[in-house]
Amino acid sequence: MLVYSLEMICIIAFALSGVLVESNRGKDIVSIMMLGWITALGGGTLRDLILSVDMIFWIRDPSYFWTALSSAIIGFFSITHIRKNSLNKLIIMFDTIGVSLFSILVTQQLYSAGYAAYVSVSMGIVTAIFGGVLRDILAHRQTLFNNTELYASPVILGCCLYILLVHLQVNITLAALTCMVLIVSMRLYIVVKQIRFPAFLLLK
Amino acid sequence: MLVYSLEMICIIAFALSGVLVESNRGKDIVSIMMLGWITALGGGTLRDLILSVDMIFWIRDPSYFWTALSSAIIGFFSITHIRKNSLNKLIIMFDTIGVSLFSILVTQQLYSAGYAAYVSVSMGIVTAIFGGVLRDILAHRQTLFNNTELYASPVILGCCLYILLVHLQVNITLAALTCMVLIVSMRLYIVVKQIRFPAFLLLK
Amino acid sequence: MLVYSLEMICIIAFALSGVLVESNRGKDIVSIMMLGWITALGGGTLRDLILSVDMIFWIRDPSYFWTALSSAIIGFFSITHIRKNSLNKLIIMFDTIGVSLFSILVTQQLYSAGYAAYVSVSMGIVTAIFGGVLRDILAHRQTLFNNTELYASPVILGCCLYILLVHLQVNITLAALTCMVLIVSMRLYIVVKQIRFPAFLLLK
Repeated sequence: MLVYSLEMICIIAFALSGVLVESNRGKDIVSIMMLGWITALGGGTLRDLILSVDMIFWIRDPSYFWTALSSAIIGFFSITHIRKNSLNKLIIMFDTIGVSLFSILVTQQLYSAGYAAYVSVSMGIVTAIFGGVLRDILAHRQTLFNNTELYASPVILGCCLYILLVHLQVNITLAALTCMVLIVSMRLYIVVKQIRFPAFLLLK
Repeated sequence: MLVYSLEMICIIAFALSGVLVESNRGKDIVSIMMLGWITALGGGTLRDLILSVDMIFWIRDPSYFWTALSSAIIGFFSITHIRKNSLNKLIIMFDTIGVSLFSILVTQQLYSAGYAAYVSVSMGIVTAIFGGVLRDILAHRQTLFNNTELYASPVILGCCLYILLVHLQVNITLAALTCMVLIVSMRLYIVVKQIRFPAFLLLK
Repeated sequence: MLVYSLEMICIIAFALSGVLVESNRGKDIVSIMMLGWITALGGGTLRDLILSVDMIFWIRDPSYFWTALSSAIIGFFSITHIRKNSLNKLIIMFDTIGVSLFSILVTQQLYSAGYAAYVSVSMGIVTAIFGGVLRDILAHRQTLFNNTELYASPVILGCCLYILLVHLQVNITLAALTCMVLIVSMRLYIVVKQIRFPAFLLLK
């Protein structure tokens, strides 16, 4: 039940972040709805496809679909309000929370379900990151593979740490909480300090 | 049998529209064949993947594959003839017919097969629209999410109307025909009058 | 066992080619790892999705995953060495070997497993080519559909020839070897002579 609520928060956060990115300005409501919807559900859809799940999560449970769609519509119509009140920072916060919750939730679910560590971590990353990547591809924009911002790194570190903590017999709820807090703090620190990769970690 | 013929018409229309778009000029025959093929079969492939179908439609029945491939090749070699005779308008017509037929056919099939309304409508839209989206992504072009033309809107309205009509106990063949005609007329009206989204439906 | 070793060579070759392409300069290590990984495993993943396989190959057997990841990391850290020694030509060689081996291996496996010729050939092509296409899409680059280089053509010809030879009762190992050698030689000849499509095979 708690997991379910957290998942819904992720869906809402992703749909809003998919709608509200600066580069969406001037797009029509139908494109925006579809882009918000894909940002929210695209990563999980890709995960379910790769895991050969019997029924994609938003077909199995309609709430995901309707939550994503209505969040995108609400985002569209409240954008003036959000921009007027400088709530933009709230959106980075939303995206950060979505990414950290979703990656750890998925890693935890899959690892507890018996998947190998590398599969659980990969799918955690895919679920959290590829919704945004799909949105950028569909909108013909640069993806996160084209800038040297540390966007994926905290997620990867967090998911790997989760596996490590579970191996060290840490309680799984405690481990998940620790890793979520870690990802959020790393991400916010990176955004505030505008940290990028050091030169020796860039390809020559 | 009628449905099958209509599906083949869609495949041919999509393969031709995938080959004949202006922006394909100068591309080689192998790229053109693959782009035409993906425009024709890509949307349906994505639908079958998302629905976790046992066997993708063009693997189950080879006619789809060969129809798409031969249409693309015929399109390639008849392009001079088509351009000389200003048959370009025929191509918009082809694409419009493909989109309207395919979206309603799929919505009808899935809804009759017991899928929820939102799944049937989404998959109708995906089948009709994502072949072209995939083609644009592969050819590194702007997708329909980057212009404010009303391309997807008639399809979405038509598919939703179909569900509504079936709920109102309208005969499903009549409902399907009505919605196809509606989508075609809306689309042609939009193309002729060059209608775009009004300003209040664009993201600020 | 031989097939397995050949597959691993393909994975390594693709991961290295995904890391070492000129246009990757300046990218950070995390992006490079993910792009190398996707180049190596993306084509096969798409094939397994389309064939509705029960378990994607790199989930069924972890060696593929770890081989791809470690090759990408090794590629990242040895780039200075590779560039200093003009080993770039080695990379074209790697990519060529990967493409020829992989396309024929997959065509052979699927055709022997009872899939139709057109499915086996299509999936051979998808496995060999779409890892690189996915990499280019994610890195927001032109894909092979945007230049008139003969990249896919040798692969298509080789896979079709394999089917023909098997129909002519040629021993399947001999047929596979012949087609691999053919693809490699055609590709190298094309690269050395800088052959492009003749004008009458370009779309007007």
